[in-house]
Amino acid sequence: MAQKNLSVVLHSQGDLRLENLPIPEPGPNEVLLQMHSVGICGSDVHYWQHGRIGDFVLTKPMVLGHEASGRVVKIGAAVKHIKEGDRVAIEPGVPREMDEFFKNGRYNLSPTIFFCATPPDDGNLCRYYKHNANFCYKLPDNVTFEEGALIEPLSVGIHACRRAGVTLGSTVLICGAGPIGLVCLLVAKAMGASQVVITDLSPERLAMAKELGADFQLTVKRADRPQQLAKTVTDMLGAQPHITIECTGVESSIQTAIYGTRSGGVVVLVGLGSEMATVPLINAAVREVDIRGVFRYCNTWPMAISMLASGKVNVKPLVTHRFPLEQAIQAFETTRQGLGIKVMLKCDENDQNP
Amino acid sequence: MAQKNLSVVLHSQGDLRLENLPIPEPGPNEVLLQMHSVGICGSDVHYWQHGRIGDFVLTKPMVLGHEASGRVVKIGAAVKHIKEGDRVAIEPGVPREMDEFFKNGRYNLSPTIFFCATPPDDGNLCRYYKHNANFCYKLPDNVTFEEGALIEPLSVGIHACRRAGVTLGSTVLICGAGPIGLVCLLVAKAMGASQVVITDLSPERLAMAKELGADFQLTVKRADRPQQLAKTVTDMLGAQPHITIECTGVESSIQTAIYGTRSGGVVVLVGLGSEMATVPLINAAVREVDIRGVFRYCNTWPMAISMLASGKVNVKPLVTHRFPLEQAIQAFETTRQGLGIKVMLKCDENDQNP
Amino acid sequence: MAQKNLSVVLHSQGDLRLENLPIPEPGPNEVLLQMHSVGICGSDVHYWQHGRIGDFVLTKPMVLGHEASGRVVKIGAAVKHIKEGDRVAIEPGVPREMDEFFKNGRYNLSPTIFFCATPPDDGNLCRYYKHNANFCYKLPDNVTFEEGALIEPLSVGIHACRRAGVTLGSTVLICGAGPIGLVCLLVAKAMGASQVVITDLSPERLAMAKELGADFQLTVKRADRPQQLAKTVTDMLGAQPHITIECTGVESSIQTAIYGTRSGGVVVLVGLGSEMATVPLINAAVREVDIRGVFRYCNTWPMAISMLASGKVNVKPLVTHRFPLEQAIQAFETTRQGLGIKVMLKCDENDQNP
Amino acid sequence: MAQKNLSVVLHSQGDLRLENLPIPEPGPNEVLLQMHSVGICGSDVHYWQHGRIGDFVLTKPMVLGHEASGRVVKIGAAVKHIKEGDRVAIEPGVPREMDEFFKNGRYNLSPTIFFCATPPDDGNLCRYYKHNANFCYKLPDNVTFEEGALIEPLSVGIHACRRAGVTLGSTVLICGAGPIGLVCLLVAKAMGASQVVITDLSPERLAMAKELGADFQLTVKRADRPQQLAKTVTDMLGAQPHITIECTGVESSIQTAIYGTRSGGVVVLVGLGSEMATVPLINAAVREVDIRGVFRYCNTWPMAISMLASGKVNVKPLVTHRFPLEQAIQAFETTRQGLGIKVMLKCDENDQNP
Repeated sequence: MAQKNLSVVLHSQGDLRLENLPIPEPGPNEVLLQMHSVGICGSDVHYWQHGRIGDFVLTKPMVLGHEASGRVVKIGAAVKHIKEGDRVAIEPGVPREMDEFFKNGRYNLSPTIFFCATPPDDGNLCRYYKHNANFCYKLPDNVTFEEGALIEPLSVGIHACRRAGVTLGSTVLICGAGPIGLVCLLVAKAMGASQVVITDLSPERLAMAKELGADFQLTVKRADRPQQLAKTVTDMLGAQPHITIECTGVESSIQTAIYGTRSGGVVVLVGLGSEMATVPLINAAVREVDIRGVFRYCNTWPMAISMLASGKVNVKPLVTHRFPLEQAIQAFETTRQGLGIKVMLKCDENDQNP
Repeated sequence: MAQKNLSVVLHSQGDLRLENLPIPEPGPNEVLLQMHSVGICGSDVHYWQHGRIGDFVLTKPMVLGHEASGRVVKIGAAVKHIKEGDRVAIEPGVPREMDEFFKNGRYNLSPTIFFCATPPDDGNLCRYYKHNANFCYKLPDNVTFEEGALIEPLSVGIHACRRAGVTLGSTVLICGAGPIGLVCLLVAKAMGASQVVITDLSPERLAMAKELGADFQLTVKRADRPQQLAKTVTDMLGAQPHITIECTGVESSIQTAIYGTRSGGVVVLVGLGSEMATVPLINAAVREVDIRGVFRYCNTWPMAISMLASGKVNVKPLVTHRFPLEQAIQAFETTRQGLGIKVMLKCDENDQNP
Repeated sequence: MAQKNLSVVLHSQGDLRLENLPIPEPGPNEVLLQMHSVGICGSDVHYWQHGRIGDFVLTKPMVLGHEASGRVVKIGAAVKHIKEGDRVAIEPGVPREMDEFFKNGRYNLSPTIFFCATPPDDGNLCRYYKHNANFCYKLPDNVTFEEGALIEPLSVGIHACRRAGVTLGSTVLICGAGPIGLVCLLVAKAMGASQVVITDLSPERLAMAKELGADFQLTVKRADRPQQLAKTVTDMLGAQPHITIECTGVESSIQTAIYGTRSGGVVVLVGLGSEMATVPLINAAVREVDIRGVFRYCNTWPMAISMLASGKVNVKPLVTHRFPLEQAIQAFETTRQGLGIKVMLKCDENDQNP
Repeated sequence: MAQKNLSVVLHSQGDLRLENLPIPEPGPNEVLLQMHSVGICGSDVHYWQHGRIGDFVLTKPMVLGHEASGRVVKIGAAVKHIKEGDRVAIEPGVPREMDEFFKNGRYNLSPTIFFCATPPDDGNLCRYYKHNANFCYKLPDNVTFEEGALIEPLSVGIHACRRAGVTLGSTVLICGAGPIGLVCLLVAKAMGASQVVITDLSPERLAMAKELGADFQLTVKRADRPQQLAKTVTDMLGAQPHITIECTGVESSIQTAIYGTRSGGVVVLVGLGSEMATVPLINAAVREVDIRGVFRYCNTWPMAISMLASGKVNVKPLVTHRFPLEQAIQAFETTRQGLGIKVMLKCDENDQNP
C-alpha cells in the first residue's frame, strides 16, 4: 500500500492545496477505501470561494469531495457485508446518533450527522479514505466507478422526485438545467413522468437537457415576469404541470414555480438562494400547492444502483471533464468557470478509467 | 309554507339589507330547506366591508351566509337519501363539473365549484334556500341545528389538521385563537395531539382556548421577533412542535411558524394575508418542513357529524351570541367588532333554540 | 348515419348473437359514439360461457364489450368539453350516485356504479353507443383508436401498480403472463421498476413477456411448491421482490406471492379465483407484507393517454388478432381458445385501421 | 448494589425457575437498569407452556419478560442522553444491523433484531438488566413505572392503529377484548375513532372494554357464522366499520373481519393463529379491503410517553394483579389461567409501588 495519501485540502477561503496526509486506519465498523473517482460539486467550489455555506463555516483545514467511489482495501473487525476488493459507492452522510430522525428513516435530518466535506468533517478527494461500512454499497460489475460516484448527485434527483411524488403520467417543470436539474430530469422520466419542461438561462445547457430526454426546453431571461413564464409553460404542456422542481434558488424562479404549478400539486425546492424570499404564498396556499424542501437524501443508494445496473437511467453523459487527482486545482478552476456539466477527478494512479 | 323569504342581501360594499326574495323551487337533485341556524363568518363581514376577497368581487346583489343548517321541506324528483322533515347540515361547496379534481376526491379545488356566498353564488342567510341534496347531510337526533351549522368552521379545522397529518402524540403550535384557531385546537386534540400551544394578541381569546383544552397559551405582541417566539414555544414544549397551524395570515406569524416547526414537520397555512409574503423559505427547505395550504375542505361532513354525535368534539361553547334573522344587521355589527367568538343567526321564526 | 346498430348481444349462457338494435339517443350529459375498436376481455368470454361472474348474473340480454374507443357523432345539450368528430377512449365505469366513494375519489368502489357489459348494464360492442360525456376522453392525434381501446386493460395495470406502490428501483414479481400480467409489466417498467420477474405455465406467453421487457421469465408447473418457487424468484433477483402482482387467481400462486415478497412489501391481488382461499396469512402478517386487491380502476384514463402520447408505454404489440364486427362470434371463439393476446373487433365499416 | 440478580429463567418447555444470575456489565452504548415493573405477556406464558412460538424455539435457558421499566444505575462510556437515576421505559427490540429496514425506519422488520425474551435473547424479568441506551426512554415524573412497562403492549395498539390508518371519525371493529384488544381500543379512541365495536367470547372482558370506552360490545360464540356477525356489526354502527383490528387469530374471526369491513377499508391482523388460514380473499380484493399485519412495533415509545404524560390515554386500569418477583411462578400461573388482564411483577425489593 502506498505510504502517501495525496489529498485536496481547503485551508481557508481561497486557499486550496494538494498535500499528503496520513493514511487512516479503519475502526471496527469502517472500511479503508482506495479512492477511484470523485466528482466536484458546486458546494466544493463554494467552500473554496467563500469559506462557508450558510451556517457551515470552515474553521480548520478540510479535505473536499463527497461524490465518490473506490475500492475496499481493508475492513474493520466487525464488517461483514463487504470485503476487500469490493468496488463500492460511498454515501457521504452517516448519522452519528440514533435519534428520532434516524429511527424514523429520515436520517438526513439528524442534526449531528457526519457529512463528507461539510465543516468540520473531511471529504474523500484523496487517495485513501475510511468510511462507515454501512454506508458503502457494493457496485455490480456492470456499473462503473464513475457511475458509482454520480450516485451522489443522482440521489439529490431521486430524493427530490420522491418528495415531489412523481409518478406515471406526471407532468413536471424543472427550473434550472445545471447538474442537479439534469439528474432531476433523468429521474423524473424514469419514474414515469410523461412530459418534462426544463428552463435555463443558457441554451447550451438546454441543448444537453434535450439530449437527456427533456420534452420541452424554455430559455429564460433574468427580466422575465414569473406569471408570464408560468403561462408559457402551461401553453407548452396544454395544462399546468403537476409538479415543479426548482433547482436555481432564484427568487423569481421560485415565484414562477408557485404560479406555474397545478392546483393540488407540489413545488420542491432544491436550489438554495438567500435566507429570506418574497413569494406568493397565498397563491400556493389557496390552490393547495404544497411547498417541500429537500435536504440531501436518504435511502437512495440501493435504488440508484439498481437503476444503473438495469440501464434504466444513464448518467454517463453527465461527465464532461476528467482530471487526474494531481491536477485537482485545475479541475476546480474548470468547475468554477461553469464549463461542461460534471468534472470527475481520478484518484487511482493505476486506473484512470471511467 | 311562508310566502315570504326574508334574506340578508349584500348589494354592494357597505350596503347590507334585509329583504324578501322569492322562495326557490328545488330542481330534481335539490332540496328546499327551511333555514334554522346560520353562523356569521369573517368572510361574510369582509365582503360587507370591502366588497371583495382577493379575486372574488361582488358585482351584483348576493345573499350572504354559508355556515348553515335547516330542515328539508321539499325534495326534488331524483332525491332518494333524504326526505321531507329531515334536519340537515349544509356543505356550501358543490362541484359543478366532473373534472380531474372532483374525480380525484379533491373537489374543493375544482375551479368552477359553486360556493355559498362567494360571488356570484348566493348564500343561505334567509328563510328558505335550495341546495344540492348530495351536499346536505342528515343530522342525528342528538346533534343540534347549531352544531350542524358549526360543522362548516369545524371542517376548516378538520381539513387543516388532516393536511397537517396530526396524529397520536403530535405536538402542535396554533397561531391565532380566533374561531378558526379554536376549531383547529378542538380537532387536533381529537386526533390525538398530546400538547397544543396556542398564540394570540388577546388574553381573552387565549382564556377561551385554555377552556377548550389548549395545553399552553402564549400572548404575543406585534413587535415580537419570530425567532424569539419560536424559541419560547420550544421551551414550553421541551422540543419544537411537529406541526404548526398558522391561522392569522400575518407575515411575522408565518415566519414564526417556519422557524418554530421541527425538522421533517409541517406548517399549514390557514390564515390569509397579503398576496406576497417574505419568509425564510430556505430554513423550511433544508429542514424539510413542508408548507401546505388549505382551501376550504372536502369530505369532512360525515366525519364531523360522527364526532359530534359521539361527543368526541364539543363545539357548543363557540356560540357566544344569537340574533333572530330580523336583527341580522346588528348581528353583523357584533361580528365586525370582534365581540365573542361565533354569532349565530336564527332563521326559523318558530324555533329559535340551539 | 347508418340506421342499423349491429350489436353483439349475449342472450343467455352460451347464446351469443349478432343483431341490430336501435341507435340510442344521448341525454343532456351524454354523447353518441360511432364505435371504432373494441377489445374482447376474458370477462366477456366468461359471461358467454358461464352466464355469470360471481354475484353478477345475466338475467336479460346484454350487449358485451367494455374495452372501447370511438368517434363522437352527437353530443348532449349540456356537454362542453368534447365535440362532434372527436376521437375518444371510453371509461366503462360511470358512478350513478354521489356517495362517499365518489366524493373520496375512489368511485370504482361505488356499489351502484354503471359498468359496461356487467349485468344488467349494456356494453359497447356495437356500431353506435351512448355514454356519459365525462367518462369519454379525447385522444391526441398520435394515439390510435386501438391504443384508445387498450387503455381499459392498461388501466388495470396502472391501478394495480399504483396500489402496489411501484416506484424507482422496485423489484417486482408478476404471476401470470396473460394480457393483464403483460400490462402490469409494461406499467411497472414505466413507473421505474428496475427488475421484473414474470411467471406463466406457457413458454409462449413468457416469450412475449420477454419481448415486452420482462427481465426474468420463469416457467412454472401446476405441481410446483409455492415456497420453492418463492426461493427460485429470490435467487433470480438476488433478493426477494418488493412487490408481487398476482394475476392468476390460482391459490398456489397466491401462496407463492405471499412467501415470495420481501418483508414490508406488498402483494396485489388482480386475478380472481375461488371465493375462499387457503393462504399463509401469518407469514404475510408477521413480515408486514400487505395484501391489497384491485377492483377495476379509477382516475387512470388521463395518465394512460399521456403515457401513450409520449410513447413511454407501447401497447400496440398486444393486439394479435383483428376481426370486423360482423365476425364477432369467430373473434370470441378465438379468444376462448386462448390464441394470441388481445383480439380486437373493428366496429366501423368504413375504417378498419388500428 | 445487590450482588445477586434474581431472574425468571425458562430452562425448557414447562421448566420455569427463579435463580440468581450474574449482574451484567453495560457496554459503551448500554445502561445497567435496576428493574422495577415487568408485565407478563401471553408470549411469555406460551414459551413456558410450549417451548416455542412458530420458528422461534427455545434451545437454551432464557430469561423471560419484555414489558418493562426500571431505573438507570450505571451508564456506558458513550451514553449521553440518559444518566444514573433516570427512570426509563425499555423498548425490547434493538436492531443489530444497519440494514435496509433500519435505514428506512421499519427496524422491527430487521431479521437480525435483538428482542427480549425471544430465543435466544434474554428478557428482563430480573433484578438487574443491561440494555442499549438508545432504546431506553426517560419517563416524566408524572408517568409511573407500571405505565412505563405498559408502553410495550400499548405500542402494539399504537402500531396496529397506525397501520390501520385510524383517524378522526373512523369506525372500528376490534375482534377480541384481551389485553391487546383493549390497548387497541384505547389507542383507536385517542386517535379520533368515533365508534368502536368490540367482540369477545367472555362477557367479563367485554364489561372491562365498556369501562375503557368501547361504544358497543358484542358477545360472540364459537359457532357464530362470520357473515352473520359481520351483519350484526353493521347493524350496530349503521354502516360497515372503516377498519377492523383482528386480535384473536381465530380463522372464523378473520373471516368476520373481511366480510365486515367497509369497501376501501383496512383489516389489521394482530392475533396470530395457525400457519394457513382459509379466508374470503376475493371478497376483500374486489372491495379493496386491504389486509395488513403487524410485527411488534417501531417508533412508538416517544408518542406513547407523550400520551401517558398528557393523560390522553389511561392504561392504569389494565393492571389487575401484582406479585413480587419472588412469586413469579405464581404470577405466571395466574396469567396462564386467564385471570384479570395484566399481571405485573415487581422487581425492586425496596419499591413495590405502581
